[in-house]
Parts: sequence; structure tokens; C-alpha cells
Amino acid sequence: MVSETFGYIDSNRSRYLEELKVFLSYPSISTLSEHREDVLACAEYLKEHCKKVGLENSSVIPTGGHPVVYADWLHAGKDKPTVLIYGHYDVQPVDPLELWTSPPFQATVRGDNIYARGAADDKGQVFIHLKAIETYFELNKSLPVNIKLLIEGEEEIGSENLELFIKERLEMLKSDVCVISDTAMYSRDIPALGYALRGLCYMQIDVIGPNRDLHSGQFGGAVENPINALASIISKLKDEKGRISIDGFYDDVLPLSDKERDNFARLPFDEKKYAEELGVDATSGEEGYSTLERIWARPTLDCNGIHGGFTGEGAKTVLPSKASAKVSMRLVPNQDPDKIAKLFTDYVYKIAPKGVKVSVSGHHHSEPWISPVESKWNQAAARALKGAFGKEPVFIREGGSIPIVTVIEKLLYVPVVLLGFGLPDENAHSPDENLNLNNFFNGIKTVYLFYNELANIKIN
Amino acid sequence: MVSETFGYIDSNRSRYLEELKVFLSYPSISTLSEHREDVLACAEYLKEHCKKVGLENSSVIPTGGHPVVYADWLHAGKDKPTVLIYGHYDVQPVDPLELWTSPPFQATVRGDNIYARGAADDKGQVFIHLKAIETYFELNKSLPVNIKLLIEGEEEIGSENLELFIKERLEMLKSDVCVISDTAMYSRDIPALGYALRGLCYMQIDVIGPNRDLHSGQFGGAVENPINALASIISKLKDEKGRISIDGFYDDVLPLSDKERDNFARLPFDEKKYAEELGVDATSGEEGYSTLERIWARPTLDCNGIHGGFTGEGAKTVLPSKASAKVSMRLVPNQDPDKIAKLFTDYVYKIAPKGVKVSVSGHHHSEPWISPVESKWNQAAARALKGAFGKEPVFIREGGSIPIVTVIEKLLYVPVVLLGFGLPDENAHSPDENLNLNNFFNGIKTVYLFYNELANIKIN
Repeated sequence: MVSETFGYIDSNRSRYLEELKVFLSYPSISTLSEHREDVLACAEYLKEHCKKVGLENSSVIPTGGHPVVYADWLHAGKDKPTVLIYGHYDVQPVDPLELWTSPPFQATVRGDNIYARGAADDKGQVFIHLKAIETYFELNKSLPVNIKLLIEGEEEIGSENLELFIKERLEMLKSDVCVISDTAMYSRDIPALGYALRGLCYMQIDVIGPNRDLHSGQFGGAVENPINALASIISKLKDEKGRISIDGFYDDVLPLSDKERDNFARLPFDEKKYAEELGVDATSGEEGYSTLERIWARPTLDCNGIHGGFTGEGAKTVLPSKASAKVSMRLVPNQDPDKIAKLFTDYVYKIAPKGVKVSVSGHHHSEPWISPVESKWNQAAARALKGAFGKEPVFIREGGSIPIVTVIEKLLYVPVVLLGFGLPDENAHSPDENLNLNNFFNGIKTVYLFYNELANIKIN
Repeated sequence: MVSETFGYIDSNRSRYLEELKVFLSYPSISTLSEHREDVLACAEYLKEHCKKVGLENSSVIPTGGHPVVYADWLHAGKDKPTVLIYGHYDVQPVDPLELWTSPPFQATVRGDNIYARGAADDKGQVFIHLKAIETYFELNKSLPVNIKLLIEGEEEIGSENLELFIKERLEMLKSDVCVISDTAMYSRDIPALGYALRGLCYMQIDVIGPNRDLHSGQFGGAVENPINALASIISKLKDEKGRISIDGFYDDVLPLSDKERDNFARLPFDEKKYAEELGVDATSGEEGYSTLERIWARPTLDCNGIHGGFTGEGAKTVLPSKASAKVSMRLVPNQDPDKIAKLFTDYVYKIAPKGVKVSVSGHHHSEPWISPVESKWNQAAARALKGAFGKEPVFIREGGSIPIVTVIEKLLYVPVVLLGFGLPDENAHSPDENLNLNNFFNGIKTVYLFYNELANIKIN
């Protein structure tokens, strides 16, 4: 059976590629209003392609912004799981265009990779699912599970309209598990399943001193300087050991289990090369944790921006009236962004120097996420990966945030599986974005096997 | 004698005012190239006016920038002091123009003040000297001392060409004392002599982290953040008591004498009003010192500007590649700006966090200055002030820097007397700059008396 399937997939490689190139040819850049029609055209193409591969109810559904493409196939039976596949057909802008080796919307194969904007993030990975579905229909005339496809057009601009879209269609989107293929494998040779994401709490500190910029000679020494005050506040947010000093900050942090630490430690990781590639002498962070632990499973605090006073060339002897900083914290399970925002605010007010007015405000938040490695859904995905790639996948965490994961989990009460086929060096969001073709074809095989695996899971 | 002199000055008030208005009508804005001809025209006017009041060798001398006006009268005898009068005829720009009550170059009398750009800084004060000289010639047909007048046209742009100008004319400018009227009285009712200025050491700190802006989710926690590192450095420059923590920073600081502290404490100073006027809840600074001591006689450290990462509206989850700050220190006698620059640099390198590259560079420096209150020159000026204003002047320091003071003192080996007739609230450099007319007329009387006093000082 498997060999027949894999043979079918392998024999269709060039057709899959040509079809992928068509999908990749739409400049569906969601953030640029001049591409509004392109985004819509891409949605229409996707709708038609969903029909073509055998899905039903394929439709382009308007939202307050760019539309959502929905399609389903619900004839596997009530005892079979319903799988919600989430992805996005919108892409990042392409500038700087001159750094692209081939035009971003004329997909080009070079070596083992296909180069185009959206190849990895996320059109290529959406297409993996469509080709797996198509293959299943071709070989079996039906699917082993019920499928609901939800492909949005606003992921790159914050999925602004998706939460409302889901809230208004809870019944339509009802499912047993959600699969998202929008992340990366651990490395070229190591397939991976993501089981945790960090959350985000993004804050701003504004420090107001005197009511106008003052002459630093006439007034320097007599009033608190807002920049010095802000630097003092920032310096007190973390201690010498890289620990965040905010009272209660770690209270809800789920510690890394010994098993996780063992697993991470066993992953190939070249600390020296990592530092070299970033151009720093050495990595640096919370004492007692490895780099992978620091970026995947420990909360952090970073200043994202700071501004105050005279910042032009040369010198101006000004004692500035104000200074501001943006400070964001990456959170880990089970930290709550709203609670952290309050702890942050209280702490900053507590340590604020006298003689200045300090105000703290919040930008966006997102929740951290974790799912049990041993869940039947994750284990089914792991078996599928092993079947397609021929090697055991690793379970990894992600340092970044994918806000839609917790939105889907909370609104639809479904577990999420992160089954990504990208690679960390495929330039998502940068020039020469690409997708490794072996991973593309192995991805189709993986998803095919995954549907099979899911069909064995009994639904009450 | 005095009553005759004062009577003469008082009877000429309206003529003085009309003449001053002509001087103030030239838009001699040195920093704006479109006013180059106006600056030159102002110099020519000044040259002619010097001739008119009785000075000799009046000339407009070219420099690499705007010209210097020089004039002298050297017939008082070799046993009489030669007095170098330094001032400037260039002015600051006038924007924002809409905030002026009357046009900046149409001098207008309202109440006790004359409003115009340059009224206080420094044309009005230069004119005080010219009218005192004129009065002396009118009443005595000669001057009691030798006079050399040096009025430059680049003070507002850093006196760039003046040092070379002096170096090349050491013999021509040779004198026994230099008088500068370009500062302010303590308050409307309290005439003052300045006997100390703070110096300046202006530095820049650049912190370089990773070789590009990083995604704060993917990398946050693994590499040192340049803004956090910079904040840490800045926070270690001063301690909780407002003392500067740089090793050796205070080694050369001339302590305030008990007498000075007594004198400062006796000056009327409303701490609450001062804070209110600046819009701060409270003043703040080095523990153990009053506000006047802090701004006049203690060194300080202020961040003048800071910049790094994303500073637009909203949020961007970037771990920035670099951050920079400008940090300046006001110095007091006998601190040496070059030595302090080295101590600052060494200290910053010492406390720099690992994982980032820190570089320290210097902008301009200027030396602090102090002169003995009890010197014969200061005491002569004090007696003149008392004679004209009818009350004892106070000896005060200045928090700012006047670089030319130490340049003159070092190149010409002459003591400098700061005999200022401005007021702290006369909006030098701001809209509605003005000069109090009582101080203008009393200034003429003071300078008249001062020349008399100086004539009593024997030169070996």
C-alpha cells in the first residue's frame, strides 16, 4: 500500500511542481493595498483548486479584510475524526526586490529548492495538504477522515479578521483536531513536530521629565533626566544572571522536564557556529539554561526600541523632556500575558525614580501554547513523519508566537498539531524564500500517512 | 562727579535706545548662510559706530567665517590697565517666528523691556560698553584706561575661527584684563558677577550586538540585546545618591568652600517655584547639595540622546542590532575634559556586558573656569555694580560653559571678568528675547564706573 502511494506521488512530481508554480505566481501580498485584487485572485484560484482535488463546498468567504477560502469533505463517517487544516495564502512583501536571484512570483527550481515568495510561508505547505488529499482521492476514491480546510488571507498582517470569522462559524468549523503546516523542521535531515510556542507581552514605557527640553548646562544636575531614569528602569528588569526581576514573573512558568532537557541536549547544535552566524562573540542569556532551552522554553525580556533626546549627528547639550522604550517579553506556558502585563506595570511603577512621571502602556499580547507530546494526535503525526522521512522526528518547541493556535484551540476546543515542512534557513520574509523539494514531496507523503493514522483514532 | 555722569546718561536715554534699535535691526544670524550679507552689514555698522563713539583703528577683519570687529583706544598711558572687551554681534535664528509678539528685527519697547533678537544676547550688552565709552569721551575727552574691543560674529556657532584669530594676533590683543558682558544677573533686583563656569565632556556610546535585526521570538533569550546592554551601562554611570560612579571622576574636583555654600544659601531661591516652572514634582540630584550648588558647582552626567531598534508607533518584535547614546558631563574646576574622557571610556569598557561590542567616542570638550572672587578685577567690578545699582552685587557661578573664556585666558594670559547685565528670563535663544531697560542704563553707568575703578589699578 505505502509503496504504491509513494510511487504515485513520486511519479507526479513534475505535475505537482508545475501546479505549485501557478499557486506561487499570485502576488498575494496582504499588507499592500495595491495587491488587493491579486490577493482575491489567489483566493479564487485556491477555491478552484480545492474543487479540482475533490473537496466540496469550496468557497471564497468575505471578511472585513481579505477573504478566507473554505472547503470540506465530510463523508468519512461520524466515527472518524474531523480534521481542520489551517493555513494562509497571503504572503509577505518582496522588497528589497534587487536581492532576489529570480523574480519572486516566477517560481524557479534551483538545485533541490523551489524559489518564490510564499514557497515555504505558507503556500508550499498548504499545497502539500491539497496534493495529499488529491492523492488520497485518486488512489482510494474517498478520504479516511473528514476534512475542513480553512486558508486565510491575512496571516501576515496579524489575522485581524479571523477570530471573528471563527466565532461566527463555530458549527461549520467544528472538528476534532487542527493541523497547521506553517513551521519548520529542526534541520534539513531532521523532521520535527512543534509542541510548544512562546507567547508575547509587548509593553511601552514613557518617561516624562521637565515640561521642555532644557539646557544641560543651566539645569543639569538639578532635575532627573528622563533617559537616565529610563535606563535605570530597564537595567532593573533583569538581573546579572539574566533572570527577569519583575515580582512574580516566574510564578506560572512550567519548568522544563528532565526529559525535555535531555531531548533538547541530544539535538545537534553548534553553539560556536550559531554565534558566528549572528556575528556575536558568544551567546548570552539566562544562567543555567542552554541556548535551545533559552529560546524555546524560557521567558525572556527584550527592549525592542528606545528613543529620547537628540539623536542626530554630533552633539547637542540638551536635557530632554522625555524618553520612551518598547519592551516585550516572550512568555512560556503557563504564563498569562494579561497577568504579566500587570506585574510588569506594577514593577516599573515601583522602581521608577523620583522626579519623573512614568507611564506604562500595553501593545499586543499573545498566549503561550503547549500540547502533550504523547497525545494521540502528536503521536499519529510522529508515525506519519517517520513513515515518510524514514527517520524518527524530534519534538521541538518554537521561540516565536503563532497567535492563531491558541485562538483556534480556545474557540473550537480542539488540539492543534504543528506539522511543519519548512526549514529555518529558507528565508521566509526575506529575499530568495524557498522550499526544499524533498521536504515538499515527503510532506505530501507524510500528510497522506497522517490521514491514515488519524482514521485509526476513534471518536466517541 | 557721579551724579553728573548719571545725569548725562539718564538725559540721553531715548537717543541710546534709538541707536540700539538700529544695531538690533540687522538680522545677523550667523548660522544661516542666507544671512551672510546681513552679518557683514552688521559688522560694518558696528565698525562705524565704534569710530563714532571715539575709538580708533576700527576695522572689520575677515576670518575663515564671519568677520571680527576690532577697535581700540590706547592713550591712557602705560601705567594704566589695558582692558579687552569681548562680545559678539551675531545672533540666534528667530524661529518659530509666529511666537514673537513683535518682529524680531524691529526692536520694540514694551513696559520696562526692549524686545528684539540679540537684545540681551549679546548686542544690547555690547552696546552698553559702546555707550559707556561714548559717555566717558563726552564728559572727559579721553578714557581712563586703554581699551581694545573684540566683537566676533560666530559666537552662536561655536566661535570656530576665533581661537586662530587670537593666536595670530597675540600682540595686538595683549591686555591686562578681559571683560565679557554676555551673562545674566542673579535676578531682576540682584546684580551679579560670575566667577566660575562649568566645562563639558561630551561622549557617545555605541553598542553593537548581532549583525542584523533579529526576530525577538526566534532569538530572544540567546543573545545580548544592545538596548538592554546600553541601559545597563548608563544605569551604572551614576549611583542611587546621584554620584557619578566613574573611577577617579571626582579626583580633581575643587570642593565648594564653606563661604561659597553660605553665599549660595543666602541667595533668594524658591525651590518649589523652580520645580513648578520646570513641570517636575521635585528637583533631584546629588545627595548633600542644594539645587544652586548642583547646577553651579558640582559635576553632572546627563544622557542627551538615546536611540535603538524600532521607535515608530505600535509594536515590532525586533531584537535590534545596535543602540547608541550621547552622554555629556558638565565639569567643574579643576577637572580636565581630556582626562575625564579617558576615565569615562575606561569605565564604560570595564562595565560593558559581554556578548556585545561597545565603542566609546568623543564629541567636543570645554574646560571649566574659575576666578578668585577677591581679585582686584572682580572687586573693582563689584564696586562699580554697587555704585550703579545701589546695592551690593552677589558672586555667582554659571552652570553652562563659555568656551571662549578659557581660550582667552590661556592664549592672552589675562584674567576674565564676567560682568553680565542680562536676566535669566529674557529668552535668549527663544522668541520674544528682551533686555530690561533699567539694567541697560544701569549697565552703562556700571561700565563707566568700572573703567574708573580699573584706572586705579597700577600696572607694573
